[in-house]
Amino acid sequence: MKKILIIGAGRSSSSLIKYLGDHAIQENWSITVSDRDLSLAEERIQGLDNCVAQSFDALNPTEREEAIESHDLIVSMLPARFHIGVVEDCIRLKKNIITPSYVTEEIKALDDSAKEAGVIVLNEMGLDPGIDHMSAMKILDEIKERGGVIEGFKSFTGGLVAPESDNNPWNYKFTWNPRNVVLAGQGGAAEYIRKGKYKYIPYHKLFQRTETIKIEGYSDFEGYANRDSLKYRAVYGLENIDTIYRGTLRKKGYAAAWDSFVQLGMTDDTYNLEGVPTMTKRDFLNSFLTYNTGISVEDKLCERLSITTDSEVFKKLKWLGIFDKTLIDLNEATPAQALQKIMEEKLSLDAGDKDMIVMWHQFHYILNGEKHVLESHMVAIGEDEIYTGMAKTVGLPIAIAIKHILNGTMTMKGVHLPIHKDIYLPVLKELSELGIVFHERNVS
Amino acid sequence: MKKILIIGAGRSSSSLIKYLGDHAIQENWSITVSDRDLSLAEERIQGLDNCVAQSFDALNPTEREEAIESHDLIVSMLPARFHIGVVEDCIRLKKNIITPSYVTEEIKALDDSAKEAGVIVLNEMGLDPGIDHMSAMKILDEIKERGGVIEGFKSFTGGLVAPESDNNPWNYKFTWNPRNVVLAGQGGAAEYIRKGKYKYIPYHKLFQRTETIKIEGYSDFEGYANRDSLKYRAVYGLENIDTIYRGTLRKKGYAAAWDSFVQLGMTDDTYNLEGVPTMTKRDFLNSFLTYNTGISVEDKLCERLSITTDSEVFKKLKWLGIFDKTLIDLNEATPAQALQKIMEEKLSLDAGDKDMIVMWHQFHYILNGEKHVLESHMVAIGEDEIYTGMAKTVGLPIAIAIKHILNGTMTMKGVHLPIHKDIYLPVLKELSELGIVFHERNVS
Repeated sequence: MKKILIIGAGRSSSSLIKYLGDHAIQENWSITVSDRDLSLAEERIQGLDNCVAQSFDALNPTEREEAIESHDLIVSMLPARFHIGVVEDCIRLKKNIITPSYVTEEIKALDDSAKEAGVIVLNEMGLDPGIDHMSAMKILDEIKERGGVIEGFKSFTGGLVAPESDNNPWNYKFTWNPRNVVLAGQGGAAEYIRKGKYKYIPYHKLFQRTETIKIEGYSDFEGYANRDSLKYRAVYGLENIDTIYRGTLRKKGYAAAWDSFVQLGMTDDTYNLEGVPTMTKRDFLNSFLTYNTGISVEDKLCERLSITTDSEVFKKLKWLGIFDKTLIDLNEATPAQALQKIMEEKLSLDAGDKDMIVMWHQFHYILNGEKHVLESHMVAIGEDEIYTGMAKTVGLPIAIAIKHILNGTMTMKGVHLPIHKDIYLPVLKELSELGIVFHERNVS
Repeated sequence: MKKILIIGAGRSSSSLIKYLGDHAIQENWSITVSDRDLSLAEERIQGLDNCVAQSFDALNPTEREEAIESHDLIVSMLPARFHIGVVEDCIRLKKNIITPSYVTEEIKALDDSAKEAGVIVLNEMGLDPGIDHMSAMKILDEIKERGGVIEGFKSFTGGLVAPESDNNPWNYKFTWNPRNVVLAGQGGAAEYIRKGKYKYIPYHKLFQRTETIKIEGYSDFEGYANRDSLKYRAVYGLENIDTIYRGTLRKKGYAAAWDSFVQLGMTDDTYNLEGVPTMTKRDFLNSFLTYNTGISVEDKLCERLSITTDSEVFKKLKWLGIFDKTLIDLNEATPAQALQKIMEEKLSLDAGDKDMIVMWHQFHYILNGEKHVLESHMVAIGEDEIYTGMAKTVGLPIAIAIKHILNGTMTMKGVHLPIHKDIYLPVLKELSELGIVFHERNVS
């Protein structure tokens, strides 16, 4: 019997644990689900075969070593900064380990040790990073094998609300950490490369420079640039590529409305506002507009943003309640925290709402002297509030990798990302059987 | 004979040391000028009476204590973060100490110790902070003594080029640290209060929201907000003031041109550009514009900024050379560093150029039921490249305070700013005799 330890039973572990439980008898697995909060671990394993819940302090080296020692394969679903301790233990104790997080320089440096120990340290095995790598590398490798030369690669991913639950003018709900949504894009310019030219977009222009993305069967999406497109050149073996651009997807119209907040300065998280306890939503908005008692806050806003009150942007802002004379209801707040509070009241998921993950790639390549464009996309809709699209796309790649590692059909050793055929082929194959399917289309 | 120690003989110490030398015989002073760089200290005292140059390591506690022990009054012209060690020594050794820098919480906490030791720790005794406090408090106190109530206070200061040396379309030259000019306003929103309403201006709007300031005899100035207006309410005893706004002065037209760089993202100091060694000024600019080989960089810029090639902004940008196909000539650079390099080539002071300090205050108050507006301004022009307007306005207030402390006519003990009549009255009086004069004008 192979023993699997899952450290962390939060929201993103649900589909992973379900898969393991569903396959436990057939594969002869015993699964330990641990969390600081025992009741959360207990909830996750309810009704599943061969599963036990456990609680230990993953930051306590003695408790952690003890837990790891009695298992064959470890999955760390801890916050990214805590992986390193688990990885070091796993290498010392010769256990395979998988995480859904970006590999760090510290973990990369353990490649030789992991090889010597005869184990795999498999990182970036979730959705983004994870499925993005696998689905892109599959097509990039295919093009290269046919003798093609890749000239451009664009890739966008978004966590959205499913069409059946999409009932507000933003066409958006918080399906994940709202704070990350409010702070998206901050902390430096977005860098990318277009036809060989490096390009930089400062944060305050990010939501103005969007691209429209069309996927058959859905209303239009738009994408804004992520900060780190350039690093994927090395990861994907595209050092000489002309154009590389990665970004985040929203439904069309979102970025223009969000840009209002950026332009006003309402997404700033670097200072505390004055007088928050007595501040209404309208006061909050007005603190970013010039002083002028002669005209309404609505008119000042329209003037500043050069919009009219019958515009889509104005409708979205008004629906959100930012003109309301009701309290923000916080004791202290940065502008970003106040904005998050206002948005959470309107954009949180309702009971029964489903989320939707959308991933879209576009490849420009030359084959036999001719230019080609290929697009590939995947849409995953959540089953319910537990087995969300996010939980499925983060957890199932890990679960499938566990099966192959324990079966001996995935044999790489060392520190890896899922950019190798031996990893991505079996994982993508089974994902598509589980409904996480990429649709490819030759555009030209 | 009273012994004075000046620690730091940099550019801003020149007028301070000259004053001390000029008064040394009459006042019976002996002056030690010390710097890490002995030749700099020697140069500063050339031709001055009762002055000796010295070199010691102000960061070495033993050397520092030895130097301080043999003097009666210490001036620390070190970078602000190094004052604390000097201040602690001075209190322990019972020596008076003056600095031109913002007082820190750490130094404030030494108030009781300084009083027990019977010494003054006089901070913020330069131009800004320094003369700004003194000239504002003089008028604020006068209005209050006459029974007036202060409703609003605005204050702007700028380090500019003197009219006789002003020969470029920016009407600006670097008279001080260029890096601070390029990074001005970054790091959080500007906060102020207008008619009782808190207002916040994000960095990317700062140079669009300027005020025009008129001073008789000069062409128009413009001011943009500093980040920290609110803290002056407590310092100046204006807790209930309706409007408070502090800012930086430039000649009119500067902000609109500078805003182009902010909008493009060229002032960002948080990441390194790619390919700097082979990057021309034109490439640098183009990396912030969209990819489009069909139109020129000039036209792309005009389109982005909504300007025409015959606009003042375009003329300023063109004159600066940002369209030139010449190398930036750096090996690595953030956008801000690249921009600074380009600007330094055109905006540095030429031999013989003079600088100009401009300070402007506006007070709104109610007296006997009537609203009044009072303005006060000071313009100080440098004598030459050594005794600049900046060096005079930073150094002379310190020099005058030294005289009064050593004479026994300024007797406060403890940690202080020059906001008390006992300090500001004698200092402002002598400053005006030295040509640093405030002109007051009742506007209404």
